[in-house]
Amino acid sequence: MQISTRNFFKGTVKSVQVGMVNAEIVLEVAPGIEITAIISKPSAERLGIAVGKEAYAAIKASDVVIAVD
Amino acid sequence: MQISTRNFFKGTVKSVQVGMVNAEIVLEVAPGIEITAIISKPSAERLGIAVGKEAYAAIKASDVVIAVD
Amino acid sequence: MQISTRNFFKGTVKSVQVGMVNAEIVLEVAPGIEITAIISKPSAERLGIAVGKEAYAAIKASDVVIAVD
Amino acid sequence: MQISTRNFFKGTVKSVQVGMVNAEIVLEVAPGIEITAIISKPSAERLGIAVGKEAYAAIKASDVVIAVD
Amino acid sequence: MQISTRNFFKGTVKSVQVGMVNAEIVLEVAPGIEITAIISKPSAERLGIAVGKEAYAAIKASDVVIAVD
Amino acid sequence: MQISTRNFFKGTVKSVQVGMVNAEIVLEVAPGIEITAIISKPSAERLGIAVGKEAYAAIKASDVVIAVD
Repeated sequence: MQISTRNFFKGTVKSVQVGMVNAEIVLEVAPGIEITAIISKPSAERLGIAVGKEAYAAIKASDVVIAVD
Repeated sequence: MQISTRNFFKGTVKSVQVGMVNAEIVLEVAPGIEITAIISKPSAERLGIAVGKEAYAAIKASDVVIAVD
Repeated sequence: MQISTRNFFKGTVKSVQVGMVNAEIVLEVAPGIEITAIISKPSAERLGIAVGKEAYAAIKASDVVIAVD
Repeated sequence: MQISTRNFFKGTVKSVQVGMVNAEIVLEVAPGIEITAIISKPSAERLGIAVGKEAYAAIKASDVVIAVD
Repeated sequence: MQISTRNFFKGTVKSVQVGMVNAEIVLEVAPGIEITAIISKPSAERLGIAVGKEAYAAIKASDVVIAVD
Repeated sequence: MQISTRNFFKGTVKSVQVGMVNAEIVLEVAPGIEITAIISKPSAERLGIAVGKEAYAAIKASDVVIAVD
């Protein structure tokens, strides 16, 4: 399956914290580059997200905010 | 200034394409890791975004979609 | 590939309108139920979106607004 | 009232799960087509969301991700 | 109609700029407080958005980014 | 630091409610104009958000929904 988001990164799950409704997942996509995602708890369970597994982070280009010093 | 987004990456602007309403900006945040953003044209001009400049990409954790094979 | 969005609908592409930066895609997911998406033009081309093809619409639950009369 | 989102579906509330901060609402908009929304708990209470009631799901076209096999 | 977004502001349309795909709308919601929205061109036309008219801006709480100095 | 969001409002924190995962923050940006944000609990702590402090609310123009009566 291919998806339309401009940003799509392969990584390794570094941590998973599951709350009552949501789960917070940290994915390392390159040395020192970690992406944090909050997804629903049922989705995290359905996808079998666990530390050490491979996963992808997908982000729409219109959801990225740019800043400069 | 500090911002609340969980994801905040420093990078170098690799390309800028300005349309009539929006601008597409590609930021290299690590070797081989590029983040594409679509922001409004006035914002790109106001921030002085240009190839080779440093900039930051900020992304809310709730905007990240996770996928697995 | 499986993705984390709670909403994931299979449908048939009913129309594609390509602008300079974005493409607007209408997907019929059930009789009379059409979902409109705006994605980037490069993504629409990369995915080979065309009228009559099958595609999926994925929507995060946190992006849905609820209204009542 | 009319709203600007391209996607606007009328449906019946199938389930409501209220957490401490958020509420998860499932709306059936056609036979077999359910849309899941996460809204804040105060909003769910203010709107009087309850199983069996009519409600609408509104989704911006730019929040829809497209995928293909 | 009532909607689930935590932020809902009544204002007066100060400007409308219509592009090929999108429209940019500026709404004054209090003296000196203007909210800029980008919606699709068909939506702007369907709602009859015009300078001087009353309109509302609705924003999900999860779409707001907080910053501090 | 400057950021790309079209909407950027300075205000005073009126309330902070911290849950297990998220925090809800209300910012008064003008008399009677309050903006509610939901950010992650770690971000609220990192930024030192507290009642009475100054803070900013940043909102992308593409995240604003417009409505009319």
